[in-house]
Amino acid sequence: MVILAGGQGSRFWPLSRASLPKQFLSLGDSGESLIQATVRRILPLVGGDNVAVVANPGLQPLIQEHVPKVRMICEPMAKNTAACIGLAAVTAQVARPDEDPVLVVLPADHAIRDDEKLRAALREAIDRAREERVLVTIGIPPTRPHTGYGYIKKGRLIEGRSFCVERFFEKPSIERAQKYLETGGYCWNSGMFAWRASVILESFASFLPQMAQGLAEIRRVLERDGEQKGAARVADIFASFESISIDFGVLEHAKNCVVVDAEEFGWNDVGSWDQWAENFARDAQGNLVKGDAVVIDSSGCVIRTAGRVVAAVGLKDVIVIDSGDALLVVSHEHVQEVRKVVDELKRRGRTDLV
Amino acid sequence: MVILAGGQGSRFWPLSRASLPKQFLSLGDSGESLIQATVRRILPLVGGDNVAVVANPGLQPLIQEHVPKVRMICEPMAKNTAACIGLAAVTAQVARPDEDPVLVVLPADHAIRDDEKLRAALREAIDRAREERVLVTIGIPPTRPHTGYGYIKKGRLIEGRSFCVERFFEKPSIERAQKYLETGGYCWNSGMFAWRASVILESFASFLPQMAQGLAEIRRVLERDGEQKGAARVADIFASFESISIDFGVLEHAKNCVVVDAEEFGWNDVGSWDQWAENFARDAQGNLVKGDAVVIDSSGCVIRTAGRVVAAVGLKDVIVIDSGDALLVVSHEHVQEVRKVVDELKRRGRTDLV
Repeated sequence: MVILAGGQGSRFWPLSRASLPKQFLSLGDSGESLIQATVRRILPLVGGDNVAVVANPGLQPLIQEHVPKVRMICEPMAKNTAACIGLAAVTAQVARPDEDPVLVVLPADHAIRDDEKLRAALREAIDRAREERVLVTIGIPPTRPHTGYGYIKKGRLIEGRSFCVERFFEKPSIERAQKYLETGGYCWNSGMFAWRASVILESFASFLPQMAQGLAEIRRVLERDGEQKGAARVADIFASFESISIDFGVLEHAKNCVVVDAEEFGWNDVGSWDQWAENFARDAQGNLVKGDAVVIDSSGCVIRTAGRVVAAVGLKDVIVIDSGDALLVVSHEHVQEVRKVVDELKRRGRTDLV
Repeated sequence: MVILAGGQGSRFWPLSRASLPKQFLSLGDSGESLIQATVRRILPLVGGDNVAVVANPGLQPLIQEHVPKVRMICEPMAKNTAACIGLAAVTAQVARPDEDPVLVVLPADHAIRDDEKLRAALREAIDRAREERVLVTIGIPPTRPHTGYGYIKKGRLIEGRSFCVERFFEKPSIERAQKYLETGGYCWNSGMFAWRASVILESFASFLPQMAQGLAEIRRVLERDGEQKGAARVADIFASFESISIDFGVLEHAKNCVVVDAEEFGWNDVGSWDQWAENFARDAQGNLVKGDAVVIDSSGCVIRTAGRVVAAVGLKDVIVIDSGDALLVVSHEHVQEVRKVVDELKRRGRTDLV
């Protein structure tokens, strides 16, 4: 079980920071961080010994604090998901040379409502990956024409809820997303995967051959020197890797992809503040208030406070997030651009705020 | 010279508070409070001995701090402008029984760019009030169809820039304001007045006879007991006064009104945050930032920070005001409703914030 905890989640500024990425935030009402929830959900499936988190070494103290029992694989630098997953695969091969283990890959920062249904889907994905040389993705039944997710077109039924993948599609336009929803036969790409280590590495050899060579070299370094002693050499090789997603670099090209059309388990990738808000019920005016606020003549607004009162007057579809040391006010349709704030603050040298 | 400093300016929340009304805020770049600027502007005209501020006794320490040399007339409770002006008139009569002094009435909380032109207009108003038994209002040449101001229709030219008032008009609809502007011959009602004490009190006798009787009684108390000893009795009488504005209670009915059609002196009644913003130049996107902010894909926005960064993304015509302990986010067209926030906070017992 490999948990990817590499990103910063800069669209969650001002709560997320380089020193406190989104996966360590407690965004629900429970006080549990996203990464804690992710580990808790899968423990009944695999046990603690089989969980590893891939993350930047700088995050080690946070990982120790949030999920102390979990093993950490150091991602020397941010290189997108393909390099990360490749590194996890060779690390698993070195740790269990005789097994060709099935790897389950999960993002650390998603929200899921129904844990049991998630585990049922993962069980089916693991079975598929164990039985056949396939690359399995968990698909989510779409509930609306979402333009922030990738889509998967289902092909032939294999068994249970597993289908051959006919094709992966990038994040669509609203018109296209609407068409996918009406046509049926499409799933959202959850970014949760299952495959044997040897199968994904074979696919790297086919579609990302340079990275596959580097990963083979990393494997030799790890076998010879171990993780500690080999770290510098691993980092050198890793630094040469292309920064590409597993979807774009591998899955969209592979012919042996399978999608588990999961039963709805209340999935939300919490990609931005509007998606975070989807986890909660709104009031009669469509407003969501978490904290101390006065809301007047406003609708469709989201307000999260941090100790001080926020007053919203005459606003429509505006999101207000107070982190205590910074304040974000963003229109609903511009939530994806919050990362531009982080870019601008970096440009200004405001390391205290990013 | 009577400065009215009674209001709270609740549309300036979260900066204005019951304990720090708008007139004591420094809203420009100079650091000077509105009341300080008001006094500074008129000193060359009348000298310090002739300036009095009418305000609630609770504001005495603030008045002492901001305008220490100015005499204070206690307004026992908020009763709108008619009662306030009546009290100032009888107080002046008692202080100078042989003079029938000309009173100039000024709001404490307006912004004015060209002090010399203001004084020129006031000089003309004082001359008119000294020479004739008239009620003089300073009129402002309208520059746009403003719906937040009262209008005055000019009649016959008297002399210089002074005209008989044909009629006062309440705050108009946008269509009507547009018509006034196109037709010409209208001024904005600035709320600055000049008249002899006896003339305004005669008008009270005609249009607010009960208040006139009370004021006569207050005069007797002041003559007999002085301000200190008579305070409780004055407060009792004042408490019985109708809460009505001088415009609505007197001027709209009087036949002896004169308007000085002043040369444009950059007047702004700073009635709400959008009007405050009019005192400053905007950037190319029509945004105004005072403080530490990141503004992305936004236009027509006003941001005033208080030590913490504010990021605005994808906003149009939104005003964000941080006071440190509270935050206001209001759409431009709803600025008048900021007072509802104050009402709601009072309802919730948040005396720390109002």
